[in-house]
Amino acid sequence: MTGFDRHPDGPYYAVIFTTKRTGGGDREYGEMAEAMARLSEKQPGYLGIESVRGEDGLGITVSYWRDQASIKAWKALAEHLIAQKSGRERWYQWYNLRIAKVERGYSFKK
Amino acid sequence: MTGFDRHPDGPYYAVIFTTKRTGGGDREYGEMAEAMARLSEKQPGYLGIESVRGEDGLGITVSYWRDQASIKAWKALAEHLIAQKSGRERWYQWYNLRIAKVERGYSFKK
Repeated sequence: MTGFDRHPDGPYYAVIFTTKRTGGGDREYGEMAEAMARLSEKQPGYLGIESVRGEDGLGITVSYWRDQASIKAWKALAEHLIAQKSGRERWYQWYNLRIAKVERGYSFKK
Repeated sequence: MTGFDRHPDGPYYAVIFTTKRTGGGDREYGEMAEAMARLSEKQPGYLGIESVRGEDGLGITVSYWRDQASIKAWKALAEHLIAQKSGRERWYQWYNLRIAKVERGYSFKK
């Protein structure tokens, strides 16, 4: 589900993570973000990810999961990883995280 | 809810619109996107919007709504507007649209 993907059948979950980066562009952030993405792909219940960051430092990452249990397991793992790196608060001016149940969807592709 | 915002109480809805732009960067697209954003703000049940487009043409816009009825009314209006402009298919290589019920959320701000 990186980029365009068909929708899986049945209800599934989206984690909408909206963030504003702190200035500076430290190298560790990129490494961390990539490690997290790689790790999430291996998690049970992972369906896909869509992620964009604009030039102004605003970013939206939406990851998709089979159910709430998958998200919970991933969250525990992610927080452990982040704690080892002195915390998310270093990288973001602010963030919003929302967990939402996808009820309907449709796609278009040329 | 442009940029950072607190979460409203109770369940609400997110429309996750993931798009890949066609090349060219026609002026009409920008005008249209802005007109749509202005119009949505005036709709009943509108809570906010978060929108990012990356340099590669991938974009994510998440708009938030009080309930499904608000989304339905907005969708009808938006489609009417788009039809007048010869269609969404002109602007996008592909898109995914998902309607999801936000069940939980948390925020951080420095």
